[in-house]
Amino acid sequence: MHSVKIQGIHKPMCLENRTGKEMDTVVYHDQPVEDSRPLASLTALVTNDMAEVDALIMQKIHSPIDEIPDIARHLINSGGKRLRPMLTIASARMCGHAGKHHIKLAAAIEFMHTATLLHDDVVDESSIRRGKKTARLLWSNQASVLVGDFLLGQAFEMMVEVKSLDALAILSRAASVIAEGEVWQLAIAKKIDTTETDYLNVIRSKTAALFSAATEIGAVIAHSSATECSALRDFGANLGITFQLIDDVLDYTGETSKIGKMIGNDFREGKITLPVILSYDRGNEVERMFWHRVMQDGQVDNGDLDQAIAIMRKYRVLEETIERARYYGSRAQASLAVFPDSAYKEALLETVIFCINRLH
Amino acid sequence: MHSVKIQGIHKPMCLENRTGKEMDTVVYHDQPVEDSRPLASLTALVTNDMAEVDALIMQKIHSPIDEIPDIARHLINSGGKRLRPMLTIASARMCGHAGKHHIKLAAAIEFMHTATLLHDDVVDESSIRRGKKTARLLWSNQASVLVGDFLLGQAFEMMVEVKSLDALAILSRAASVIAEGEVWQLAIAKKIDTTETDYLNVIRSKTAALFSAATEIGAVIAHSSATECSALRDFGANLGITFQLIDDVLDYTGETSKIGKMIGNDFREGKITLPVILSYDRGNEVERMFWHRVMQDGQVDNGDLDQAIAIMRKYRVLEETIERARYYGSRAQASLAVFPDSAYKEALLETVIFCINRLH
Repeated sequence: MHSVKIQGIHKPMCLENRTGKEMDTVVYHDQPVEDSRPLASLTALVTNDMAEVDALIMQKIHSPIDEIPDIARHLINSGGKRLRPMLTIASARMCGHAGKHHIKLAAAIEFMHTATLLHDDVVDESSIRRGKKTARLLWSNQASVLVGDFLLGQAFEMMVEVKSLDALAILSRAASVIAEGEVWQLAIAKKIDTTETDYLNVIRSKTAALFSAATEIGAVIAHSSATECSALRDFGANLGITFQLIDDVLDYTGETSKIGKMIGNDFREGKITLPVILSYDRGNEVERMFWHRVMQDGQVDNGDLDQAIAIMRKYRVLEETIERARYYGSRAQASLAVFPDSAYKEALLETVIFCINRLH
Repeated sequence: MHSVKIQGIHKPMCLENRTGKEMDTVVYHDQPVEDSRPLASLTALVTNDMAEVDALIMQKIHSPIDEIPDIARHLINSGGKRLRPMLTIASARMCGHAGKHHIKLAAAIEFMHTATLLHDDVVDESSIRRGKKTARLLWSNQASVLVGDFLLGQAFEMMVEVKSLDALAILSRAASVIAEGEVWQLAIAKKIDTTETDYLNVIRSKTAALFSAATEIGAVIAHSSATECSALRDFGANLGITFQLIDDVLDYTGETSKIGKMIGNDFREGKITLPVILSYDRGNEVERMFWHRVMQDGQVDNGDLDQAIAIMRKYRVLEETIERARYYGSRAQASLAVFPDSAYKEALLETVIFCINRLH
């Protein structure tokens, strides 16, 4: 069994007060460096279950209309980590679920995620996803929208088959909240005066809601206590925020070969993320005019991405964003304290570290 | 109470054999002409229930993100007939449902329909819907996709609140089938050699599946017998086919002021519908070349729509399509025979006639 060391105790951090929300006192854990294989413990533990999930996914993307499995397979087999369904599997197992419901729910979670990606790529007019041309370029925007709808329908069919109204309530709520977050993101696009609070609410909706649903339903189908359901809901939500904040940093520092898309995507799309919000907040008059021009007016010239990164380095806002990510990661880890030690719990703790380690 | 006369008995018709499917022997009913108010009986019967549905719809489109209620309201308040939710109300009431579940399910059905329209307008690049500019023009394609997703999520939330797994199974299946039908329609677009069988399967999916779900869930929440559930499922499916075939005819014969969109939309989009399939089937060499050029190659010049309509008139394919619609309408009516006479049953029978009468 792989062991993950949660090293070091920092002084309690109170970053949340910057967003105007109530302060939390949390214990901060350093990331370990000993295991270089990403998600090694989690992947090993869920291998058999995930083989069943994959088989179910392949079965459920079948349709007499060839475009549907073609497009779905293009994205589903494009080397995604299957992080969200693995979280459902591990959560259900940690809570002692012994049946097969977690397989269907995990496949449904992956379908919801894939549907979101298909629609996102249309909305963002993206050309590359996971290092491959997007479905909207290879097929069409139209097909991407409709196959997304199909996958969402299939996701709900699988959820209904599990016959858990509680799980269905969580997942249907997540579907609304995710879409709401995406519209919100669209509404704040190019708005350089977006606050950190607004931005955190957007990512709570568009990203963290699915992570949170993915982990909470694991507890729900295992008939866990309300405390445990709530703990896994919080775990997923905070993990999702961690994941998204690191994604925002990667857009300015990542390597295309590793992150599967060109850096500067968010920048070119005028997408306001935390590094931009912090840079604008810290910036002098000239720098603020720069952010106005490139983000709000959309006038991006050669060299502007380098200039943006230079300003970010000057104010160390990427480091600050990573600090925020670590803070939410530590909250995620802390919420698992209600569960007794187990291999699954360790694997879930490891996931937090993986999300932060994507930087390296 | 309004009475609807089902007049005249034709000889049994066997149109289905043209599509290669097994023959059905059905009794054909003429349409009545006495009541000029559209859907008068149905509308009167469901007035109170529909007021509750409308209130729930307004409540469920609320969101702190203004774009969501703005876009949803733009479409939902644009003078649509609310035909599908009225069918759910009437079906549930006919089956004796005395609770309030039908209100939530009817609102969910309208949300599913609205989500489909938002996505359809993006897919078809439409500029007018119900006589108004489409949301994708007034806001954006992006917002239309995402607000559609939001409404679908809200629809599922309402369905889950009803706590009927049987109704949820029907509705989630419908969501998949509708999307599948839309992809299928995209796949046959511009394919002039599409068969009538393929086309009927497309409209069974993209249009009839929601009608069928709308009526069947009425029986399901009333705990009706399997025979009655099946009867209302068939009623909705055949009514949906009737509705769509008349829609296809209206695209070549309707008046913009009445149908709320320009005629010739399907033609300009290269959308293969039954009048085109029949015209191509009956056509001579020159006419077939015409259909190839305008539908398959998309080379549409001034005067081509008139030419298309002239060919349709020559072979009387619009009349033939209407005959098909009447045939499915009579099947819909026949399937209600298992229910005792009631005002709701008469209103549902009237709906069939309304769908055909939209031509006048």
